[in-house]
Amino acid sequence: MIGVDWGTSSTRAYRLATPGEPAVGAVLERREAPAGILHIPPGGFAAALREVVGDWIAAGERRVLLAGMVGSRQGWLEAPYLACPAGLEEIAGALVPVPFVDAEVRLVPGLRAEDGTGVPEVMRGEEVQVLGVLGTGGTVDPLVCLPGSHAKWVHVEGGQVVGFKTSMTGEAYAALRRHTILGRMMEGDAAPSPAFDAGVARAAYPGGLLHHLFGARTLALFGRLSPADGASYLSGLLIGHEVTASLPEGGGRVHLVGAGPLMALYARAIALRGGMASLGDADAAARGLALIGERASWM
Amino acid sequence: MIGVDWGTSSTRAYRLATPGEPAVGAVLERREAPAGILHIPPGGFAAALREVVGDWIAAGERRVLLAGMVGSRQGWLEAPYLACPAGLEEIAGALVPVPFVDAEVRLVPGLRAEDGTGVPEVMRGEEVQVLGVLGTGGTVDPLVCLPGSHAKWVHVEGGQVVGFKTSMTGEAYAALRRHTILGRMMEGDAAPSPAFDAGVARAAYPGGLLHHLFGARTLALFGRLSPADGASYLSGLLIGHEVTASLPEGGGRVHLVGAGPLMALYARAIALRGGMASLGDADAAARGLALIGERASWM
Repeated sequence: MIGVDWGTSSTRAYRLATPGEPAVGAVLERREAPAGILHIPPGGFAAALREVVGDWIAAGERRVLLAGMVGSRQGWLEAPYLACPAGLEEIAGALVPVPFVDAEVRLVPGLRAEDGTGVPEVMRGEEVQVLGVLGTGGTVDPLVCLPGSHAKWVHVEGGQVVGFKTSMTGEAYAALRRHTILGRMMEGDAAPSPAFDAGVARAAYPGGLLHHLFGARTLALFGRLSPADGASYLSGLLIGHEVTASLPEGGGRVHLVGAGPLMALYARAIALRGGMASLGDADAAARGLALIGERASWM
Repeated sequence: MIGVDWGTSSTRAYRLATPGEPAVGAVLERREAPAGILHIPPGGFAAALREVVGDWIAAGERRVLLAGMVGSRQGWLEAPYLACPAGLEEIAGALVPVPFVDAEVRLVPGLRAEDGTGVPEVMRGEEVQVLGVLGTGGTVDPLVCLPGSHAKWVHVEGGQVVGFKTSMTGEAYAALRRHTILGRMMEGDAAPSPAFDAGVARAAYPGGLLHHLFGARTLALFGRLSPADGASYLSGLLIGHEVTASLPEGGGRVHLVGAGPLMALYARAIALRGGMASLGDADAAARGLALIGERASWM
């Protein structure tokens, strides 16, 4: 089968071993394209899908599972959010078919949760990564963190997502870095460094994030924060605030899922705030798609 | 004398009654120009000053006091920050002369404070407003708040500024409103409204500001926050977080200083968080400049 993690700005496609084949979920082939849903003209999703995986379909693949923002209001078709708690069975039973010739194409629904305060929570795409992590067979920490523009902290129990919480950390970092006075005193991007650690440590003080942001400016003004260290300090402040507000009292274990430089920053911040992070593999999305595909009722 | 509040983006000039005249500090004439320091070419400050108040100097004014970012590294000349605690006497004794013909021109130094955590605090311009409020003769609450891009909460005691705290609330609001996904679901700007109150209330919940920001998106996604209400909710979240982190335990009285629509928003947020706000007059800067000028030793 084919699994596609189709997000806002890019598309990751996997050709996956299917039930009946020896290694379910094994990635036979993979590719990435900049065909995020924001770059697709109205009515252009079928053509875009063919462009990315048309040769795999021509080679005989008949099952295509799409996850991510492609199932949002701005995507191909809106797949309604499924309420938590939800696991493999619930998600596989709620796939939304998309009109397409030559292959069966289905959308994975996103998940929604309520935290009891009247403010809903949503995810689209991260659920396949979490299910992929749960499907490794090993012990998984009950708290899974997926860093990113909209970072997710997911509570899992008995193979299901029972609830989660999103922080707009990555997007806020980009807006503050590029569009405030802070950016003018910074060169380059954030890195795991003593300046990052100092930002994380600062986040534990009272005064609030908005106050701590101004401190990045005064530290630079007084020559205590160099332009090369500025972005790391800002990143440490933001990730530090997120981790402090998301880690259980006293620390706890966190399973980190994702790839790229953010993983090292989050692992560092979690350790500094008294937690312990373990790193999941970067193929969690592919495995999650395969596991959902395995349970779906295809024609 | 002439007093000028010369900031980053604009300039407010006052012709003030001086010692010996019946009403010290009375504003005889006022004008505002878009000649903020960011718009002045290198070496162009003397010419810019003449453009704004040259006719007053020609009419006989010989004393000119400048406050605000004009005394910063990016301004006319850098006037070093004066350490807190500082009041009228200390500031009047630390004015920095600027070369100019036809008149004596002096810069008011900004203030700096340390909060004991190694992160310095600074202000430039707000100190004349605070001194102006203290100079009214009436009772002033020991906590003075000046809303703005970089909002200040100032502790005063015995006529002096003893310490203060800055939050980058206004600038963060602008960056988030204009440069994140949140802005795409908002029309217009913030207003005192039930949506603003809902944002302030949300800020009191756990989870952190970065989490609450994402909630603005999901509320809109589920039709629980209209585009017309979005900016007010975002503003309520940010000001709510600032006020919650800045108000003393249990509330307390806050003297608000400034002008414009932010004042009503801050007064509302302070009340919602259990505090009580009183509004200072908008001429605090002029009065502060007059009071400093009165104590300065002019030639």
